[in-house]
Amino acid sequence: MFKRKHLLGIEGLTRDEIDHILDTAQSMVEVSKRSVKKVPALRGKTVVNLFFEPSTRTRISFELAAKRLSADLINFSGSSSSLVKGESFRDTVLNLEAMHPDIFVVRHSQSGSPYYLTTFSKSSVVNAGDGAHEHPTQALLDALTIRQHKGGLDNLKITIVGDILHSRVARSNIFLFSQYNTKVVLAGPPPLVPPEFKNLGVEIEYDLDKAVEGADVVVMLRIQRERQTGSYFPSLREYRKYFQLTTERLKRADKDAIIMHPGPINRGIELMKDIADSDRSVILNQVSNGIAVRMAVLYLISGGSNELNN
Amino acid sequence: MFKRKHLLGIEGLTRDEIDHILDTAQSMVEVSKRSVKKVPALRGKTVVNLFFEPSTRTRISFELAAKRLSADLINFSGSSSSLVKGESFRDTVLNLEAMHPDIFVVRHSQSGSPYYLTTFSKSSVVNAGDGAHEHPTQALLDALTIRQHKGGLDNLKITIVGDILHSRVARSNIFLFSQYNTKVVLAGPPPLVPPEFKNLGVEIEYDLDKAVEGADVVVMLRIQRERQTGSYFPSLREYRKYFQLTTERLKRADKDAIIMHPGPINRGIELMKDIADSDRSVILNQVSNGIAVRMAVLYLISGGSNELNN
Amino acid sequence: MFKRKHLLGIEGLTRDEIDHILDTAQSMVEVSKRSVKKVPALRGKTVVNLFFEPSTRTRISFELAAKRLSADLINFSGSSSSLVKGESFRDTVLNLEAMHPDIFVVRHSQSGSPYYLTTFSKSSVVNAGDGAHEHPTQALLDALTIRQHKGGLDNLKITIVGDILHSRVARSNIFLFSQYNTKVVLAGPPPLVPPEFKNLGVEIEYDLDKAVEGADVVVMLRIQRERQTGSYFPSLREYRKYFQLTTERLKRADKDAIIMHPGPINRGIELMKDIADSDRSVILNQVSNGIAVRMAVLYLISGGSNELNN
Repeated sequence: MFKRKHLLGIEGLTRDEIDHILDTAQSMVEVSKRSVKKVPALRGKTVVNLFFEPSTRTRISFELAAKRLSADLINFSGSSSSLVKGESFRDTVLNLEAMHPDIFVVRHSQSGSPYYLTTFSKSSVVNAGDGAHEHPTQALLDALTIRQHKGGLDNLKITIVGDILHSRVARSNIFLFSQYNTKVVLAGPPPLVPPEFKNLGVEIEYDLDKAVEGADVVVMLRIQRERQTGSYFPSLREYRKYFQLTTERLKRADKDAIIMHPGPINRGIELMKDIADSDRSVILNQVSNGIAVRMAVLYLISGGSNELNN
Repeated sequence: MFKRKHLLGIEGLTRDEIDHILDTAQSMVEVSKRSVKKVPALRGKTVVNLFFEPSTRTRISFELAAKRLSADLINFSGSSSSLVKGESFRDTVLNLEAMHPDIFVVRHSQSGSPYYLTTFSKSSVVNAGDGAHEHPTQALLDALTIRQHKGGLDNLKITIVGDILHSRVARSNIFLFSQYNTKVVLAGPPPLVPPEFKNLGVEIEYDLDKAVEGADVVVMLRIQRERQTGSYFPSLREYRKYFQLTTERLKRADKDAIIMHPGPINRGIELMKDIADSDRSVILNQVSNGIAVRMAVLYLISGGSNELNN
Repeated sequence: MFKRKHLLGIEGLTRDEIDHILDTAQSMVEVSKRSVKKVPALRGKTVVNLFFEPSTRTRISFELAAKRLSADLINFSGSSSSLVKGESFRDTVLNLEAMHPDIFVVRHSQSGSPYYLTTFSKSSVVNAGDGAHEHPTQALLDALTIRQHKGGLDNLKITIVGDILHSRVARSNIFLFSQYNTKVVLAGPPPLVPPEFKNLGVEIEYDLDKAVEGADVVVMLRIQRERQTGSYFPSLREYRKYFQLTTERLKRADKDAIIMHPGPINRGIELMKDIADSDRSVILNQVSNGIAVRMAVLYLISGGSNELNN
C-alpha cells in the first residue's frame, strides 16, 4: 500500500509501495483510452503546478493528469511571478498555501526544494524534478513501461547511457531498479559517470559496446547541448562516436531489448536518427504512461479512497 | 452531413457539408446566450490548442468553444515549448499525441502544417490558420454572419478588399463563396492582388469605387503595418486614399450592404475611423459567431452524436 | 443587500452593502476548507481575467475563486494580446465581449479603466486594481480579516503606514473604514502622505511611534523599490529607520493589535524581518480571505440566487 502524503523521491520507498503505485497507474492507463477520459476522483481538489524551471511537457502531463481526475488546476510559473519583485520561494509558497491547495507539484532547479516546502506547508507535495536530485514520476513511468514490455522488473539488465552526473532521472531510476533483482550498468564519458556512483550498487562501464551487451533495457539520457563545450566531453562529434546508440550497437543487446529516453530527444546525437521510431523504441509509450503514473500519484497521495468511476 | 475527421481547409468541402456545419453552428449560437452556457457534448475529451504563431483572439475563441462543450482544454504555445531546445514540430506533436488528445487545433506560420500533422497523428485536426494557405473557421464564421443578415449565401455580390496575396482568410472565403451562387470581386493594390487569382473564379477590380458598386457584402482585410514599406504599396497615406472604406464609398454599395473584417481592425486605415461602429458593421457579430462555428466544428469532428443538452 | 451589477470601487457603497458582501464571504470561507471545495453556483458562466498589469497573486486568487464556483475562466493578459499589434483597449474588450462573457475582472494601470469598460460593455465588471484609484476586493478582504479578529469594524483605531499617495489599497481601505466608527491614521514620509488626504476624514501623523499608539490594526503598505530613488524618500535605510514596523514600535499598539499587509512583503523593509511570521501577523489570513471575498463578489454580481451547495 502507499499511505504517504508526499512523493519527494524514489529513495526510501519500499518495493511494496512502488508496486502499489504501478498497479494503480496500470488501471489509470485505461482511463485515457476511454471515450470519456475523465473520472471524478479529485473533484473539488486544487492542484498547483509550481514550476520554477521551464518544462512544457512535464507541466502539461501533470495538468492533463489533474484534469482527467476532475481536479481544479492552477499553473504558476516562477518567472512570471512576484519572484521578480524579490519575493522569496518560501513567501511565494506560503501565499499560495493560504489559498488552500491540496497538492503542490514542484519543479525547481535547486535540489531539495520540494522537501523544504513540506517543512512549512500543510499541502501534499509531488517532486516534478529538483536540480540533479530526483524526478520520481519519471522513474515510475519508466518502470511502468518496462513492466508492460518485460512482464516485470526482476531479472533484467538495464543500461543507462549519458550524462549520469547531472541527471535526476538517472538517480531516481537507480533507486527504483535497486528495489528489484536488476543489474544496472551506467555508461558515458568518464567525467559524466564518476566512480562514486558504484556506491549505489550499480556497475560502470565506459565502453558502450560492452555496456549494452545482453541488455534488456537501454535508457538513453538527453545530452544538454550547453554542456558540450567545457571539460565534460570534447565535442558532439566525439560524443556520437563513442556514446550514440546505433543500429550496430543495438545488436549487442538482447534481441527483445527496448530503448527508452526521458525526452526531448536530440535526434542524431544520443540516438541514431531513426532509431527513436523503430519498433524497439518505447519512448512514446513512456509519455503515455507519464499521464497514468501522475494520475496514480495525485490520486494516492490524496487518500486514494474516492470512487474511480462515474 | 459532415462525416470528416479533420477540418484542414474549405477547399474540397461540398456545399452540403458547409451547410451542415453552418446549421449546427446556428444551433450553437443559442448556447452562448443561455444563462448556463455549457453543454456536456465533449465531456472527457481533450482539446489541445497548438499555437506556433501568436493569436490571442483565435486561441481564446477555441478555448471558450471547447469549455462550453465541457471538453478539457490544454494551451500549448510554440514559443514556450521545448522547440527552444531544438525539438522538431513532428517530435513535439508525437509527444502530445502520446497523451491521448482527441483534437489538435493548429495555428502555424507554415502552409500545410495541419495536413502534415494528420500524416503521423491519430487525433482529429482543425486548421486554425496556416501560413497564407487557409483559415477555414474564419470563412465559416463569415458565412454564418452573412447567412444571418442576408438569409442565405446565394445571389450575392461580395467584395474583398486589401492584401489578398498574403491572406489565408481571403483564400478560405473564396473557396467557400464559390460553392454558392455569388459574384466575388477582389480589390487592392495590384502587387497584393495578382491576376492569378482569377483562376479561382473571381473578378479583380483595382478601382475600389467600382469594386463596391452594388455589393451586398464588403470584406475588409487587415493591412499588416510591417508590409507598408517595401514593394507592395508606397505608404499608408496612399493606401488610405485608394483603398480605405469610407462613408462616401460605401454609398455605392447596396443600401443594405454589410461590412465585415476578420480583426483586429486598424481604425482609420482599412476603415474610416467610426465605420466599424456603424449599423452597417457586423464585425462583432463575426466574433460571436466564431465561438458558435468552432463549437460546431469541434462537435462534428468528434462524431456529433453526443447529446447537446443537459 | 447587494444588488449591483459591477464592483468598481468601495466609494459609494453603503454600510449595508459592505456588510452583505462580508457576510456572504464569511460563508464562502467554509467552502475552501471542505474536502470538496467547489459549489455549482456559477456553472456555465464565463469569467474573464483581463489583466493589463502583471499580478500573479491577484489573478490566481480570482482564478481559484471562479473555479471553486464552477465558472469557466479565461486568462487574458495585456502584454500577450493583440494590443501589441496596435489594437485599443476598447476594441480588445469589445471583441472579448462579443464572446458573451458574464464577468470581466479588470486590472489596469490607468485609473478609471473598469468604469470606462462599463460604458460600452454589457457584462459585469469587477475592479481588480486600477492605477492609484481603487482595489475594492483588497479592502473587502482586509475588512473580513479585521472582523474575524476584532468581532466587527466599529470602535477601532486603524493605522495605515507607507506610500499612501500611490496606493489604491489605502484609498479603498479609507473609503471602507469610513463607513464604520473607526479612527484611521495615516503615516509615512511626508511626500507620500500629502495633507489633502485629511479631506477623506482621516488623521495624518508623520511620527510612526505616535501613529501606532493604541492602534487595534496596523496596515503596512508595500514600498515599491523603484521609488526609492527620487524625491519621495532619501534611502531605504532612512525609510527603515523612521517607518519600519519593529517589535519595539509594535509595543505601543494595543496589546491585541493585528498586523496586515496586502503583499508581497519586503521582509526587512516595511516590516522587521520576522514580524510577518509572528502571531500578531494576519497576513496569510488576508490571502485566504481573498478567495472568499472574490467568490462572494463574483457570486453576488451574478445575481446571487443560484444554489450554493451541491
